[in-house]
Amino acid sequence: MAHRPRFFDLPLETSMTALAGRNRANVTAAAAKLGWDSVETDWRALLERDDVDLIDVCTPGDTHAEIAIAALEAGKHVLCEKPLANSVDEAERMVAAADTAAARGVRAMVGFTYRRVPAIQLARQLVADGRIGTVRHVRAQYLQDWLSDPQAPLTWRMDKAKAGSGALGDIGAHIIDLTQFITGESITGVSGALKTFVTERPVAAELTGLSGTAGDETGPVTVDDASVFLAHLSGGGLGVYEATRFAQGRKNAIRIEINGSQGSLAFDFEDMNVLHFFDASDPATTGGFRRIVVTEGEHAYIAAWWPPGHGLGYEHAFTHQVVDLVGAIAAGEQPTPSFADGLAVQKVLDAVERSAEKGAWLDV
Amino acid sequence: MAHRPRFFDLPLETSMTALAGRNRANVTAAAAKLGWDSVETDWRALLERDDVDLIDVCTPGDTHAEIAIAALEAGKHVLCEKPLANSVDEAERMVAAADTAAARGVRAMVGFTYRRVPAIQLARQLVADGRIGTVRHVRAQYLQDWLSDPQAPLTWRMDKAKAGSGALGDIGAHIIDLTQFITGESITGVSGALKTFVTERPVAAELTGLSGTAGDETGPVTVDDASVFLAHLSGGGLGVYEATRFAQGRKNAIRIEINGSQGSLAFDFEDMNVLHFFDASDPATTGGFRRIVVTEGEHAYIAAWWPPGHGLGYEHAFTHQVVDLVGAIAAGEQPTPSFADGLAVQKVLDAVERSAEKGAWLDV
Amino acid sequence: MAHRPRFFDLPLETSMTALAGRNRANVTAAAAKLGWDSVETDWRALLERDDVDLIDVCTPGDTHAEIAIAALEAGKHVLCEKPLANSVDEAERMVAAADTAAARGVRAMVGFTYRRVPAIQLARQLVADGRIGTVRHVRAQYLQDWLSDPQAPLTWRMDKAKAGSGALGDIGAHIIDLTQFITGESITGVSGALKTFVTERPVAAELTGLSGTAGDETGPVTVDDASVFLAHLSGGGLGVYEATRFAQGRKNAIRIEINGSQGSLAFDFEDMNVLHFFDASDPATTGGFRRIVVTEGEHAYIAAWWPPGHGLGYEHAFTHQVVDLVGAIAAGEQPTPSFADGLAVQKVLDAVERSAEKGAWLDV
Amino acid sequence: MAHRPRFFDLPLETSMTALAGRNRANVTAAAAKLGWDSVETDWRALLERDDVDLIDVCTPGDTHAEIAIAALEAGKHVLCEKPLANSVDEAERMVAAADTAAARGVRAMVGFTYRRVPAIQLARQLVADGRIGTVRHVRAQYLQDWLSDPQAPLTWRMDKAKAGSGALGDIGAHIIDLTQFITGESITGVSGALKTFVTERPVAAELTGLSGTAGDETGPVTVDDASVFLAHLSGGGLGVYEATRFAQGRKNAIRIEINGSQGSLAFDFEDMNVLHFFDASDPATTGGFRRIVVTEGEHAYIAAWWPPGHGLGYEHAFTHQVVDLVGAIAAGEQPTPSFADGLAVQKVLDAVERSAEKGAWLDV
Repeated sequence: MAHRPRFFDLPLETSMTALAGRNRANVTAAAAKLGWDSVETDWRALLERDDVDLIDVCTPGDTHAEIAIAALEAGKHVLCEKPLANSVDEAERMVAAADTAAARGVRAMVGFTYRRVPAIQLARQLVADGRIGTVRHVRAQYLQDWLSDPQAPLTWRMDKAKAGSGALGDIGAHIIDLTQFITGESITGVSGALKTFVTERPVAAELTGLSGTAGDETGPVTVDDASVFLAHLSGGGLGVYEATRFAQGRKNAIRIEINGSQGSLAFDFEDMNVLHFFDASDPATTGGFRRIVVTEGEHAYIAAWWPPGHGLGYEHAFTHQVVDLVGAIAAGEQPTPSFADGLAVQKVLDAVERSAEKGAWLDV
Repeated sequence: MAHRPRFFDLPLETSMTALAGRNRANVTAAAAKLGWDSVETDWRALLERDDVDLIDVCTPGDTHAEIAIAALEAGKHVLCEKPLANSVDEAERMVAAADTAAARGVRAMVGFTYRRVPAIQLARQLVADGRIGTVRHVRAQYLQDWLSDPQAPLTWRMDKAKAGSGALGDIGAHIIDLTQFITGESITGVSGALKTFVTERPVAAELTGLSGTAGDETGPVTVDDASVFLAHLSGGGLGVYEATRFAQGRKNAIRIEINGSQGSLAFDFEDMNVLHFFDASDPATTGGFRRIVVTEGEHAYIAAWWPPGHGLGYEHAFTHQVVDLVGAIAAGEQPTPSFADGLAVQKVLDAVERSAEKGAWLDV
Repeated sequence: MAHRPRFFDLPLETSMTALAGRNRANVTAAAAKLGWDSVETDWRALLERDDVDLIDVCTPGDTHAEIAIAALEAGKHVLCEKPLANSVDEAERMVAAADTAAARGVRAMVGFTYRRVPAIQLARQLVADGRIGTVRHVRAQYLQDWLSDPQAPLTWRMDKAKAGSGALGDIGAHIIDLTQFITGESITGVSGALKTFVTERPVAAELTGLSGTAGDETGPVTVDDASVFLAHLSGGGLGVYEATRFAQGRKNAIRIEINGSQGSLAFDFEDMNVLHFFDASDPATTGGFRRIVVTEGEHAYIAAWWPPGHGLGYEHAFTHQVVDLVGAIAAGEQPTPSFADGLAVQKVLDAVERSAEKGAWLDV
Repeated sequence: MAHRPRFFDLPLETSMTALAGRNRANVTAAAAKLGWDSVETDWRALLERDDVDLIDVCTPGDTHAEIAIAALEAGKHVLCEKPLANSVDEAERMVAAADTAAARGVRAMVGFTYRRVPAIQLARQLVADGRIGTVRHVRAQYLQDWLSDPQAPLTWRMDKAKAGSGALGDIGAHIIDLTQFITGESITGVSGALKTFVTERPVAAELTGLSGTAGDETGPVTVDDASVFLAHLSGGGLGVYEATRFAQGRKNAIRIEINGSQGSLAFDFEDMNVLHFFDASDPATTGGFRRIVVTEGEHAYIAAWWPPGHGLGYEHAFTHQVVDLVGAIAAGEQPTPSFADGLAVQKVLDAVERSAEKGAWLDV
């Protein structure tokens, strides 16, 4: 097996050992293209293999708990996609499994990948260093538009049984985690609303198993198209959150603005290599939001990449995630975000759903 | 009396006849500087004067109802500052007075000035023309930072008895009105939260009447420093609103973004001559938010001003307001925003306050 | 005569005494609309009047020298539009007249209005304070697009006899003056190019005196549509200048960026209330261009206007110009920019034209 | 040997066979980290190997001609870093070698990587489709700031013998190629200036071979720190170019703006996933620069990557370069940019240098 090319120095040797998928032809083709050494058609087979140390769970949410818990019990480290689960109950069982595994040196991490965008790391650092003081306001939006078209086909992401929720869990989970990560605070109470604008959609051909045009059959959308909520933060600030797949023209706009007593931060993933920082201690005449191009060697992860101004893209955060996970495994430490962090997000998602149903504020 | 210089052709001749204020020395100095022909020290005196046809009520909110109603009853046209009143009850009485006056040809208007920023007019036009389709999302923020400093002194704006509310009524009222104006829809239900971050402030010297440093005495802040609320819109969309004086680095950021089924609009008063417009019917390869510099002769009000690209400033909207008011008076028509529009905003403010108290969604 | 309304405290009382124009009907209508107290149909009549102290010369460039010199000789203060003249020779005679007049307490100023945009004042201050160190690069663009349409009609601005030059003198003059003002340096050598993209245009009806459609007759464009030049600066830096009326989509984009050894500045008139400032002494991790909203009370001229974030527009700079001129007259001081400053610009314009003709670098 | 992971379907199987470097320890470590299968300490050894089909020449400019010509003569396809060579003479010999090789099916390409940024591809397409009409203006800047610090050490990039030129050839070459590529036009004449702001720098320890502090020894900078030039374009437009390593706060700002008779384009590599496009055929009221987020499946290269809004980074253009090169080799076609394209850039670089020396315009 060839040595894996890499930009980072890793304390462990890694290999892409096996790719699991239910359809042998498909999984074999994918493995060939993506460079996996072997395939399995049942994820359980991975648990039996001695040459597999780490399992990346990137299936729909309804299967996370079963796979992750089984993998941890089999002594495999686990990286699980977000949101951690489809319910608080599942997430709690996963945390318990992770705790048990940790006692044996087996690690579990949840893939809130955006934490590892360098600008987000800098935001957290500035808050931790007291540069914006006490957090007064968090406003966070995750805006996409791919469901604006009512003819966009039904997929598993619009099926509550599989996905748990819609925009809320898929993308709202990210901004919940990001803002809790950056501020170091928790969301303690919420008042939310969910909305499904398009309740019936054409069934995608691959879901029906038919070769005909998808347009002939439709099915119900059982999740939210958009969700919004207000929040109380543990430090006394106010939060405003919005996740939607109906924001025409916004493709993947993760926007986070945080106002503190001493300064402010603003981020938009559509310009992901930049963080805006206002320092209230600057004199009034020369104060202003600084457009920090987060591509200096001193910024997180950047030393492994390019010179200043040569930006990173979407997938770099996944690379950083693996680097940090491998580092934690080698060091025998708990990687973050942990399953407990994933559970914390799950509790907020759950409170938002219940609050929306009830029409009232609820504690998380 | 000299002819008033003007940029617009007006159907009526105007003059700045009298300025009223309680302190004769101060009001005389102000009149001299600003070009008023005479002064009064009691606003009631204006009602007696035959040479006064129109009264501009720009006092604190607790006096709006009394002055405006008396002026209308005295047959004077009225332009009243926003928010219309400090309570729904006051506002309803003002609407009744305006209705009675209108029957006699006497006009009443509320000063939601920002409606007359050309970019806002364009936004309304695009919605009315169906260019963004059905409104899915309204996100509106009015962000200032002048109270972030806990040593900023107490003024009447922080006194509930005079101001009615804090950020909510002072600046939140603007974004409520603007979004109802642009979309042509109403806010039908809200869930809100209010917050006072700094509950005690030094009393300003001019309020204590003492010559000593203000720092020796403090007083309670009895209004909200910040308010946030979710909203249901009459057309089925979701709204998210935020008004605060604690957003460090944001000086007067009125930000409105509206996503519809066919397109989107975005505006920020910090760049007031620009409207961003996304047209979902553009091909995917060349679609994108258009940065429209709203300074063309074809845009509202602009023909009276400068060539393209020579922007307007804050006070131009006040000029437009007077132009439109004088035009409506001359034409014998109801100017907008009417007192009824002001009442509609008042009802939302009221619902937000009650919702915040109750911790639940309320109908407007 | 009524007291003039004003925002600034002025040391002298001002009045708009007389408006001069050749066509009595037109000038009378303009005076009525704009608030002038009387009219004249020959500018020479203004020189005879005892109630006229200051003359604003805003005629085409070919008449500046004659009018301004006559006015100064008649003891009238003069504010002359830019560029100062149509030739270096004219400008030199105007400077001589201004010098003679100054000895008698009569003042002359040239209307490079954009100097009085608050963000430009701040830029100059930051350079003067050494905040950007030694100037390495000046890049300045004045971009408009109103001649992109080949059917845009011929006016005096496209007639070399009247206008002197095209984009170069009309708008290029502004960026030459602005950059010399901000940096405190002179342009010492240039290499330029001029271009006329559309050499023949329809004659505007008002120029032919005919009532027929303009389209039937065309005339030659005798000035440049666009001009570009490189420059050496007196402090050792390199300049790049561009003035054009053919930049589609750019309406009045005055863009100036200055890079120094210790920092940088960037300005764009399409966002005129903002200055971007990079301070190289900030740490690498938190350094970045600061978006300074130049609307604080501490910024030039702002204390007379609005609270932070309530921006100014195009004409405010004209108000500032008059305020400063009246102040200098009252104080018995030389207002700036002086005719000598206007001559300095004229010499650059002249050198650019000669350089373009010769195809080589020329000293200014 | 493992299958190479990939995002694109390639018509040929590729492998990273051998890495050549002069120092065995260093090249072995690099190969291990980056995933090369073997190493060589003399580039000539690569020419002897049967398992090497393609050679990537990424050495300093003074060695390009020798290596590339030898490689082509040995029947190896060549990808050569930019600028193609250090002189027009070398570049011409390389083109001749490439022509001879092409007759035998051996391909040569020069690495103007930025052509393969999707937004640049879109820009070219829009020009080719006539969307901006006749090109009037090209303004192109390549701004960096890494030499602003006079203590930044001397490297081979500041040595004329090795690098050929400074900012001009290193980064100016990119904007020359990009603008010729996008417009499909040639630069036909130039007037330039070069500047070296810091003429003496500390010698980097690795260059002296000494272990002591570098600060003790200094050496001369023999190339330009900054270069600027005006240009005539083959289609009648005017160009303004600027390349510098002294633009404080600009890290890797490749800015290209093109104004045509029917529209305009603007790009800045600091926001590399975006192209701004102004279409003059839009109505005046709704016209404006469109901020196109170039991440749609319909955009060049994107279908192989992520969903809309999930941006690419710096190195993706290198991936695209290899994909296109492998595709051309498989198809038996000439890849672009060819060595002839590289020679075209070289001729402009040469003309700028000679023009700067002479102080006059020169034909390319």
